[in-house]
Amino acid sequence: MITTDTLSLTFSALADPTRRAILERLSHGRATVLELAAPFRISLPAVSRHLKVLERAGLIARGRDAQWRPAQLQAEPLKDVSVWLERYRLHWEESYERLDDYLSEVQKKQKPYKEQE
Amino acid sequence: MITTDTLSLTFSALADPTRRAILERLSHGRATVLELAAPFRISLPAVSRHLKVLERAGLIARGRDAQWRPAQLQAEPLKDVSVWLERYRLHWEESYERLDDYLSEVQKKQKPYKEQE
Repeated sequence: MITTDTLSLTFSALADPTRRAILERLSHGRATVLELAAPFRISLPAVSRHLKVLERAGLIARGRDAQWRPAQLQAEPLKDVSVWLERYRLHWEESYERLDDYLSEVQKKQKPYKEQE
Repeated sequence: MITTDTLSLTFSALADPTRRAILERLSHGRATVLELAAPFRISLPAVSRHLKVLERAGLIARGRDAQWRPAQLQAEPLKDVSVWLERYRLHWEESYERLDDYLSEVQKKQKPYKEQE
């Protein structure tokens, strides 16, 4: 069974470097499949498949022009990721603080040695 | 071929509601497989498989005690997600601003109507 909750759909769409590169390109403005395919050295059908995954996750919208259908970034699902992420900020900041504590402890221990030089 | 870049590995691990619930549980402190399985109504082997995915993504560490191996949240990969996400903040804030603009425009249009009441 394919997971369909929104956040899982978003994370799953983001779990691919080419799709993230497509989003990065679209963050500078809308682009057609042809324009998107150019820098990636992948086939047009492959780009189309990536766009379908991004569209299904609500991360892009496609134009109505049947031939070109330019893709456009839709950043709203990323806001939900940001909200989800925020509760863990304390945890990664804490772990960096622990590293800071460790490093300043190491420095303290090294000081007397340096003074003896 | 399985994608192995770190960010894809993290996003892929997060693309599952049970794995996100496990991380949420671990954000309150370390827990064994048994403790993690209890609230989820899934089998111990299923929890173990989820923990392996989370461990491979560096989102948890397991204790050395062979029998219990309590799992512990490692939030560092989430910091990388946060850094990646930050460049899109402007985009989702802009789209909310556009919504704000639209709503205040609608309100403006409604005002004369209300005044006539």
